[in-house]
This record gives sequence, structure tokens and C-alpha cells, in this order.
Amino acid sequence: MRQAGRYLPEYRAMRRRFGFLELCRNPDAAAEVTLQPVDRLGVDAAILFADILLIVEPLGVGLEFAKGEGPVIRRPVRSERDIARLGRIDVEAAVPFVFETVRRVTQALAGRVPLIGFAGAPFTVASYVVEGGPSREYLHTKRLMYEEPEAWHRLLELLAEATARYLNGQIAAGARAVQLFDSWVGVLAPDDYRAFVQPHTRALVRALTPGVPVIHFGTGTAALLPLMRAAGGDVLGLDWRVDLEAGWAAVGHDVAVQGNLDPAVLLAKPPYIRQRVKDVLDRAGGRPGHIFNLGHGVLQETPVEHVRALVEIVHELSDRRSR
Amino acid sequence: MRQAGRYLPEYRAMRRRFGFLELCRNPDAAAEVTLQPVDRLGVDAAILFADILLIVEPLGVGLEFAKGEGPVIRRPVRSERDIARLGRIDVEAAVPFVFETVRRVTQALAGRVPLIGFAGAPFTVASYVVEGGPSREYLHTKRLMYEEPEAWHRLLELLAEATARYLNGQIAAGARAVQLFDSWVGVLAPDDYRAFVQPHTRALVRALTPGVPVIHFGTGTAALLPLMRAAGGDVLGLDWRVDLEAGWAAVGHDVAVQGNLDPAVLLAKPPYIRQRVKDVLDRAGGRPGHIFNLGHGVLQETPVEHVRALVEIVHELSDRRSR
Repeated sequence: MRQAGRYLPEYRAMRRRFGFLELCRNPDAAAEVTLQPVDRLGVDAAILFADILLIVEPLGVGLEFAKGEGPVIRRPVRSERDIARLGRIDVEAAVPFVFETVRRVTQALAGRVPLIGFAGAPFTVASYVVEGGPSREYLHTKRLMYEEPEAWHRLLELLAEATARYLNGQIAAGARAVQLFDSWVGVLAPDDYRAFVQPHTRALVRALTPGVPVIHFGTGTAALLPLMRAAGGDVLGLDWRVDLEAGWAAVGHDVAVQGNLDPAVLLAKPPYIRQRVKDVLDRAGGRPGHIFNLGHGVLQETPVEHVRALVEIVHELSDRRSR
Repeated sequence: MRQAGRYLPEYRAMRRRFGFLELCRNPDAAAEVTLQPVDRLGVDAAILFADILLIVEPLGVGLEFAKGEGPVIRRPVRSERDIARLGRIDVEAAVPFVFETVRRVTQALAGRVPLIGFAGAPFTVASYVVEGGPSREYLHTKRLMYEEPEAWHRLLELLAEATARYLNGQIAAGARAVQLFDSWVGVLAPDDYRAFVQPHTRALVRALTPGVPVIHFGTGTAALLPLMRAAGGDVLGLDWRVDLEAGWAAVGHDVAVQGNLDPAVLLAKPPYIRQRVKDVLDRAGGRPGHIFNLGHGVLQETPVEHVRALVEIVHELSDRRSR
């Protein structure tokens, strides 16, 4: 999961100096923010600091980050006509700063821990572009899928193609694994996922540099897991709303899984956190191929000491198990 | 699902005359609103018009419906101390108007179609009382569960006991079935459901008047379905984020299911709606014990003619199947 964020005082300090997009576009600052949690928390990997929407800027949809509001797309794309106007995304020209950030982080880490790159999956990125920002019900997105399926597929093809080049660029610059965030895909019925999303995610994953592990993640996906697994990925991310044992059985034990503590547990005190970490590890049953993680990103309200305690607890309990 | 609502012009007309709580408290007006969709749509049952939070008014938490904002609880309950102060809810004194509405609707229907009563389940009602309104992440609720479990259990016991009396009062007044809405319970991990919710929902269902069917519904519950079934209910409600066939298998074919078309499908035109209704009926496989329904309430943006078309399509395709 994303490790940098407002729960970290050193991140908040950076955000007082830089606007959000400004921070993403500045390789020095973005590299610093990427490294902050590695130093502070003792995690086993660094996660690139960037935003899943950077890649849509060249579409001219008017991406902004309004203060306290999250992303806003000033000119959302909602019809066949809107989509026909969109050109191919020139990834190399659009986000050179991301590749530069990856190079600087890789250099600074000097092999200490690996760097994980990331991108939004086509459905989740499209949902922002169509809705104009975050959404609760995704009605514009679903209406487009149901009423203008050809336009929908064209939009997703365009995003899948650009995202593959975006992730391959991160890999070329030094990322040792990549994570594909289909964060909001859990709002779809399984039939909709199969018809409107799966072919595009599959094409994207197939276009990635071979040999680099791909983590495929979404939330609220209990019923979508087998379909997501079929779309691709070496590791399937499980959120907390599925039992880890059941989720792993659903995707198959021949694939790795990542997860799945509810981030809200980190609001409770360390003894309780310890008990819940133990539950997750018990469900994983010590099988190889389980990567402990939160079921979604660290909540802004989380005390930093609780996140550090989490990392220590996971290390301690996993070491004990592997002895 | 709730049938009355802003998508109906005759409901909007009533709302110009009455505030939301005022409408709930006026048996004549609430009965009229309950009957509107029966007359307009040709559905097979009437659903009581009320709000799941009416029952918490006597707790003195300051329930209001702010214009365009939904429910607001002015004095949310977030700690052991807050909860220790709460008294038993005198249901009969608190919501006599709901029972009167049920009597009037039953009389007006004169057996034409049955009336379904309803209430919020303890978790979902508690989540509003703790958060102070709708929430995205339910952090106050989860923090209370994790940090002060005894206080949490006391709150849920209090709500379960009052809700059982509330539903039994609706049954005594003429409701022929009752639906328990645990609308937001899908935000919980299965372990949390088992520890913090299931015992209370089970106690509630066991306290209901025997012989009256109980529909148990939530959204985003793909991984919770077997636990919800174990908690109780004669019919399990499935939202659209689970395949109907898989969801029915998860709860067992010895229980009935209700569902599960994505309400967003009603934004599309009738020929597409027809295709998606057929998919749902195919998944149900013509087995007895499937009640066609939406996976959640009708969206405000839905054209009324589409809802009417849906009812006709379901009747037509089900009749054809049962011939």
C-alpha cells in the first residue's frame, strides 16, 4: 500500500512546501517522500510516491488537486464524442519526472530494499476521468459502459496501452516490482467486470516486461477475485473485507497474496494490533507466498508509532514462525 | 428495496409539502407515500415508508435531516461514558406514528399486495449514532469496537432489543414480512462481523414474532453471506456485487434469496434492462425461493418509466419461465 501520506509529520512538512502535483513532478522531493517511510518505519520495500492520475494529464481533461478535496477532473469525458477526441498518451513526454524519481530512489536505496512502482488500473483511472473525481455510485461510468460500450472499450484500450508503457518505464528506471491499483473496481457486478474490465487489464498485464512481479489490487473485491486472478498478476491484493484464507483459496494457492489487515485496526493500541496481526498470519498458515500488508492505505488519522509497532510486530511474529 | 423516493414525481410533490421527518411522523402522508409505487409501478409488495433512524430519536442524540445532506446526529455517541448514559428505548412511545402508518396502509391495500415492514439492523443504526451521519470509513465505529468492546456490545444490545420490539409492533399492525437492513455492514472484516455484529443480529431475529418471513439485507457482503445467514433470516438479500448463483450457493439453497440487479442498470434503456434481468433470472435457474429485486434502492436519477418497464419485464420473463 501507499506508505507516504499525511499520517507522517515529515510528509506534512513537505506538503507545506509543495502542492500535491508539484510534489509529484519534482523528482528530488518525490524521491525524498518515497524514502521517508523506509527510514521511519523499517518496511521491507519502498513504494514509489506518485498519483494514479498523472498519466491522464496529456488527455487535456483538466486534472487538478483542489485543497482538501482530492483529485478533480475539470473536463470529464462522458460520451462517444468526448472519447473520440482523445489522442494517444505520449507517456515518455508526459511523466519523465516519474521515471527520474524512480532512478533517484533506486540509487539512494542502493539495494537496501527493493522499490515497487505503481499505476492505476484502467477501470479505476477511467472512473475518475468519467466522473470528474471520486464517486460513491459511479453512475456516469456505468451509464457509459451500458449505453456506449464501444466508446467505453476505446477509453479502456487507450488507458491500458499507456499504463503498460508507464509501468515498463518504471521498470526500466529501476522498479523491481509493480503494483496495479484497481482500487474502486469492487463497485462492479462480476458480469460487468468480465465484460468491461477484464480484457483490458489482461492486455495490460501481458504487455509488461517479463520477469518482474506484478501485484494486482482492488478493494471490495470478494466476489471478483477469481476474475482478477484470470486477468493477471503474480500477487493478488486482498482487502480486509474477505477472510485471507478464503480469499487465497478463491484465487488459488499457485498465486501469491498480499494483505489483509483492516487499516482501521491501526487506530487501536499496539496490544490489540498484535492480536489482529497474529490472526492474519494464522490465516495465511505460514504458507510461502503470503506478503503481510494492510488491506488498503494507511489512514490519515493513524498515529505513526502504531504503524512502526505494526512493522515490528509483523517482523517478530513472522521470524518466530519461520524458525 | 425502498420503493418510494425522489425518482417519483408524486414523492417529490409530497416532499415540497413536508420535511422528511415530518413526512415520516404523519401517518396519512406516510401511508400515501408507501402506496404511491404500488399504484404507479405494479410491484408485488408495498414497502413501508419510514427511516431506519426514527427509533434512535428517544436516545436524545439530536437526529435531524439537513436539507440535501441526509441524516445528521448532532450528539454522536463515541465512548463508554456516552453509552452508559443511554436509557432503554420506549419504542411504543417513540414511534406510534409508524404503527399507525402500517395500519392505514394495510387497510388501504385490503389484501391486494402484502406490506413489508422494515428496520435498520443494529450495526448499521449504531454506525450512524457513532459517526454522527453517513460515513466512508467508519473510523469512530471501528475504534469503539476495537478499543471499548464492552460499550460497543451494550450499544448493540440496546438497539437489537428495541428493534425487535419495533418490528414486532409493525407485524402486529399488519406487516406480512419484515426486512432488516444492515446496509453498511459490508465495511467490516468477516472476523469483525462474527465478533461484534452477529450475536446481536441473531438475538434480534430470534426475538421476532414466529411465522413472519424475515429478509436480511446488506451491501458489499460477498464475504459475509454465510455469517449473515447464520445470524438469521428466511430470505438473504444479495446486492449486485456478487453473482446470484454464487451468492445463493454461499448461503445455501435451503434459504430464499432476493436480488440482485445493479440499480445503475435502470439508467440504461429498456432493451438493455431486459437483457440484464434475463441474466439475473438465468442465474436463479428458475429455482423456487428467488425473489427478483434490485441489489439496492432505486437511484434518484432513474427515469420512472424505466422502473415501470423493469416490473413489466420481470413479470413477463418470470411468467414465461413458470409456464
